[in-house]
Amino acid sequence: MSEVSIYRDFLKSNIGLTDNISDRKKKIPHPQLQKNIDKSDIIINLPSVSELLIKDRDIYNCIKKRRSRRMFSAESLSVEELTYLLWATQGVEKVLPDNSRIYRTVPSAGGRHPFETYLIINNVDGIEKGIYRFLSLTNQLIFLFYDEDYVEKLNKYTFGQKFIGQGSVVFVWSCIPYRSEWEYNISAHKAILLDAGHMCQNLYLACESIGLGTCAIASYMQKEMDKFLKLDGDEEFVIYLAPVGKCKK
Amino acid sequence: MSEVSIYRDFLKSNIGLTDNISDRKKKIPHPQLQKNIDKSDIIINLPSVSELLIKDRDIYNCIKKRRSRRMFSAESLSVEELTYLLWATQGVEKVLPDNSRIYRTVPSAGGRHPFETYLIINNVDGIEKGIYRFLSLTNQLIFLFYDEDYVEKLNKYTFGQKFIGQGSVVFVWSCIPYRSEWEYNISAHKAILLDAGHMCQNLYLACESIGLGTCAIASYMQKEMDKFLKLDGDEEFVIYLAPVGKCKK
Repeated sequence: MSEVSIYRDFLKSNIGLTDNISDRKKKIPHPQLQKNIDKSDIIINLPSVSELLIKDRDIYNCIKKRRSRRMFSAESLSVEELTYLLWATQGVEKVLPDNSRIYRTVPSAGGRHPFETYLIINNVDGIEKGIYRFLSLTNQLIFLFYDEDYVEKLNKYTFGQKFIGQGSVVFVWSCIPYRSEWEYNISAHKAILLDAGHMCQNLYLACESIGLGTCAIASYMQKEMDKFLKLDGDEEFVIYLAPVGKCKK
Repeated sequence: MSEVSIYRDFLKSNIGLTDNISDRKKKIPHPQLQKNIDKSDIIINLPSVSELLIKDRDIYNCIKKRRSRRMFSAESLSVEELTYLLWATQGVEKVLPDNSRIYRTVPSAGGRHPFETYLIINNVDGIEKGIYRFLSLTNQLIFLFYDEDYVEKLNKYTFGQKFIGQGSVVFVWSCIPYRSEWEYNISAHKAILLDAGHMCQNLYLACESIGLGTCAIASYMQKEMDKFLKLDGDEEFVIYLAPVGKCKK
């Protein structure tokens, strides 16, 4: 089989073709919904999601005018704007009492939601520059670290796509594949990418509705980006990026 | 490497890791944007996209109330409603003069848009039951064939998910991978699934905005679905499904 054929096969449904006994079927307890935090971590409470900042609430307009936008101004984002984008992409609507399943603003196969949201914050009012992770269950950010060379690194690790580092914030989604594998084993992986697409489309539309721009990025150096975010590259790794900023007029 | 590790690797960026000379770089002409039609084909003109039918234009509400909906009533869809959903998922906003690239209501890596939209029409006012393909460039449907056992087949090929055949229309998206491979070679395939996710999320939100429901389906028998739609399973194959209907009250 040619290399391209192998890759094409990954796009296809393999359900029913393998024994594919998942850990769920083996009665292994479900994985946790969100990565742990340490007691010593610096936690920032985000405001409640506010609808008041939505300038263009019209869904037809938002779909129609959506573009991939790469020209960002130096204007800052407000914390409220950032919170709205986090809600649109990974907001929690419901958690089952046994914590086995979560319902978010975006759909995910089997309600697995195998993502964590990292933010490279460059220019958000009231939040120090640095790398953060979103705690969707409690609407908080956790401060991870500061790297003074982050713009240079982002530029290098995305093959010179300079506009990425010019975003006021860069969304970097990681994937924790076991969350989906627990339910689907080797049928999980196609669904994981479909789910990442659902999530990113909500980012696009939410940005349009508040006068911001974004552009999804799948072209990056895997190992370097994982190392930058201190992910192990196996149980958790970067899957998709999207810088966000106010559009240059 | 374990089987799961191989699948996990498909989720990662392989850009920069291979020589990966694409056909575009080899100056091979770009593939066509849409599948051909024959002169003898039965073509149905769709109405212009109408905003008037949008009951809930509010993007915040649409994101908030979106759910995967599996209970469809027997009510029919109007052609206008169907046209709006086709626009939201694959509507054409711009085509470059040389036909090399297309801009749609959804983003696709490199503007490649490697999808065709098939419709299994069950209950749409003024359109006979049957299997159709959407011609996005001219806002038309092409009638393909009628299969009196389609409900039974859909049920079987999706492992007994009976609600699918109860949709007034079932969106079945195929993938023509070469459209993306032409630009990205073996870096195309991750992006294809992300793109399918973008598209399907717009279907979810557009449905919510006009009081319809949908539920994305990645669990289907690949070979059987391809054969049902008369796709060769290599250059074109089914990638994602979504039944749509009015929600049961």
